[in-house]
Amino acid sequence: MPLFHRFEFDVLGHTVSLPVPLLVNVAISFGAYYAGRSLIPKMKPMFINANLYGIDMNKTSKPKIPEAFGVVTGCIFLVSLFLFIPVPFLRNFSATIQGDFPHDKFVEFIAAMLSICCMILLGFADDVLNLRWRDKLYLPTVASLPLLMVYYTNFNSTTVILPKMVRPLLGHSLDIGALYYVFMGMLAVFCTNAINILAGINGLEVCQSLIIAGSIVLFNVLEILHGNHSEAHEFSLYIMLPYIGATLALWRYNRYPSQVFVGDTFNYLSGMTFAVVGILGHFSKTVLLFFIPQVLNFLYSVPQLFRFIPCPRHRMPKHDPATDLLHISRTQFRVDELNPLGRLCYQVFRHLRLIRCELDADGKTVTCNNFTIINFCILLTGPIREDRLNRLLVVFQLLCVAFAFTIRYPLAHYFYDTN
Amino acid sequence: MPLFHRFEFDVLGHTVSLPVPLLVNVAISFGAYYAGRSLIPKMKPMFINANLYGIDMNKTSKPKIPEAFGVVTGCIFLVSLFLFIPVPFLRNFSATIQGDFPHDKFVEFIAAMLSICCMILLGFADDVLNLRWRDKLYLPTVASLPLLMVYYTNFNSTTVILPKMVRPLLGHSLDIGALYYVFMGMLAVFCTNAINILAGINGLEVCQSLIIAGSIVLFNVLEILHGNHSEAHEFSLYIMLPYIGATLALWRYNRYPSQVFVGDTFNYLSGMTFAVVGILGHFSKTVLLFFIPQVLNFLYSVPQLFRFIPCPRHRMPKHDPATDLLHISRTQFRVDELNPLGRLCYQVFRHLRLIRCELDADGKTVTCNNFTIINFCILLTGPIREDRLNRLLVVFQLLCVAFAFTIRYPLAHYFYDTN
Repeated sequence: MPLFHRFEFDVLGHTVSLPVPLLVNVAISFGAYYAGRSLIPKMKPMFINANLYGIDMNKTSKPKIPEAFGVVTGCIFLVSLFLFIPVPFLRNFSATIQGDFPHDKFVEFIAAMLSICCMILLGFADDVLNLRWRDKLYLPTVASLPLLMVYYTNFNSTTVILPKMVRPLLGHSLDIGALYYVFMGMLAVFCTNAINILAGINGLEVCQSLIIAGSIVLFNVLEILHGNHSEAHEFSLYIMLPYIGATLALWRYNRYPSQVFVGDTFNYLSGMTFAVVGILGHFSKTVLLFFIPQVLNFLYSVPQLFRFIPCPRHRMPKHDPATDLLHISRTQFRVDELNPLGRLCYQVFRHLRLIRCELDADGKTVTCNNFTIINFCILLTGPIREDRLNRLLVVFQLLCVAFAFTIRYPLAHYFYDTN
Repeated sequence: MPLFHRFEFDVLGHTVSLPVPLLVNVAISFGAYYAGRSLIPKMKPMFINANLYGIDMNKTSKPKIPEAFGVVTGCIFLVSLFLFIPVPFLRNFSATIQGDFPHDKFVEFIAAMLSICCMILLGFADDVLNLRWRDKLYLPTVASLPLLMVYYTNFNSTTVILPKMVRPLLGHSLDIGALYYVFMGMLAVFCTNAINILAGINGLEVCQSLIIAGSIVLFNVLEILHGNHSEAHEFSLYIMLPYIGATLALWRYNRYPSQVFVGDTFNYLSGMTFAVVGILGHFSKTVLLFFIPQVLNFLYSVPQLFRFIPCPRHRMPKHDPATDLLHISRTQFRVDELNPLGRLCYQVFRHLRLIRCELDADGKTVTCNNFTIINFCILLTGPIREDRLNRLLVVFQLLCVAFAFTIRYPLAHYFYDTN
């Protein structure tokens, strides 16, 4: 049945041909947006009744905002995928009797959804129950097991193409074997947690996720137009478009001033979605390229995350009710109480002017900003309004994405043979 | 590699041969039990802090009991399955390069886990947010879509073998086509909700689920010993054994007097697990046979579920603090205010002595027990202690299961040709 394959039409004399499943997917993504738009405001009282709310500390009125709305977005996203799954296989159903149904492609969708669904469950459990740190590390790893199995059975390509300059030494490519699976397993953990630690002002999590998602879609489209691995990139589009639809609806209510908070659920869901398309679409290194601000924030945060430098429970900026501006939040410690690694980090960061420190009268107690790029941004701009700060971070992320595409396309010619 | 196929040993001169994955599965199931046993008590404060608790109304001291512990059992169950999945495929991994990995078998596991994971998420969301009735009906239907797709692509057998006596009229078998899929979709919804409405006293949900699970395991073993569809029944065992392991740990803490409540999460998880093995193991009608008490309770409840007779929010028995005994709970209505269907139900149930009614002085206002088999049981026994009531219902379910096996095996000879 060619009906279920491609839909062709003329634009200015050129024949444009689109796969029909893609058109259905776009329609479902619009549906996801409208479903979210109507559901989210209706569900606010439910969340408040369930004690799922937070106080917006960056507003003068300190309003109660219902929290963990990522679970609504997540469910809409899941239902969209459930409804879409049969579509790309409709023309294969007649082939079922002959036993040549593409189970290997089908299992990719199901495994992707399983990993995403697990992360929504984990995120929501975290929002409700406040899980411990180690659960946040090993549960995503376990949740990505089926994904890695699918990768193993469908591709099992663990070869990394090397840049031209090291080829005389190491050859054209290197099979890193099991290390590649470790990398992919860690990708899921990294993506889920990286978004989670770059958060704390209205709309930031959703904005950064939307930019990453948009970059992946743009990358998929470019690759399809270049005719590279079209199938893998179509698979990615089928997952990313409903994600964007559902998330845009969330953004409507989460942008400054937030009417709902997204919770860890949303960050986990987003991180896993990006990891899933990267792994199964076979472009996991490119996905990492779109995470530059998150990687920078992670590297900058390392001294506090690993407790070399004391880390308060919340590191988000501090609100000044008098001016309605955000100031940096601070941490305080005695240099002589730090361990050697902490002292090293402190000295290096101070000399690179990555932190702003004040010494107490005794010359030993240091007060400095918390190590997040949000605070660093305020260091550069001075006290700033919450929505402007978010806009600045969005512009920074867009610049990073532009840089990522430069690396991926024009620059790649210098390092790799490309067509 | 035969190592990963069967493990053979001698018992009294007979060679017993067990599939190695089954042995690994049993080990993982024990692990699930011990994980639950150590995790559940540790997590109680987390649930209390998150406002996830209920008051045990059937105790004189009215204690606060943490609720929704099904989510812990569910996560342990999921992690067990995640860890187990690679095992049955280990000997196929070498076949991957030749492209004959059994993706069709693999996708069964992944789809089963996806449906179960979705139901845990839905159940937990219900426990936290108190979803509306219609969500509880259409979300399980959507969650079973991938399951039905797998059934379609792997089996697509929609033929029902007919009993001997109707064969002269309708032939040996009947292909009911799409209706079979409607039946399977409704099975998931029925199983998830049937356990949910037969609840309200300590330990009952877990006990009934364990009995059903045990019956399914016994049935699988019998069928494997008979050499019928061994592969499908092994699949079912691989899912049911970790379920039983995780649930036994929950039972330890949920039995009278309950230290934790299981929540809707557990009932949804259990119902979907039974539906999954029934559908993919191709014995969904037999699974329904193990649900006789739930079916009876559902049929008995119909007048209240569909609001022909007024239905209070909770229908569980009423506790008398003076004697520590449970009494029936009641509903009150005026006969002349019922709609015709309600009046019909009332008259039929009254004449069949299925309800005990009292008429008010005006002769119109009726007070009668709520329509659940728990209340019906108290009607028969008189006021009764909670643990005894649970034991009676367990005995009743065991009798029903014995009856089910009688129908399935000896009686089936009269209706079908069996070997």
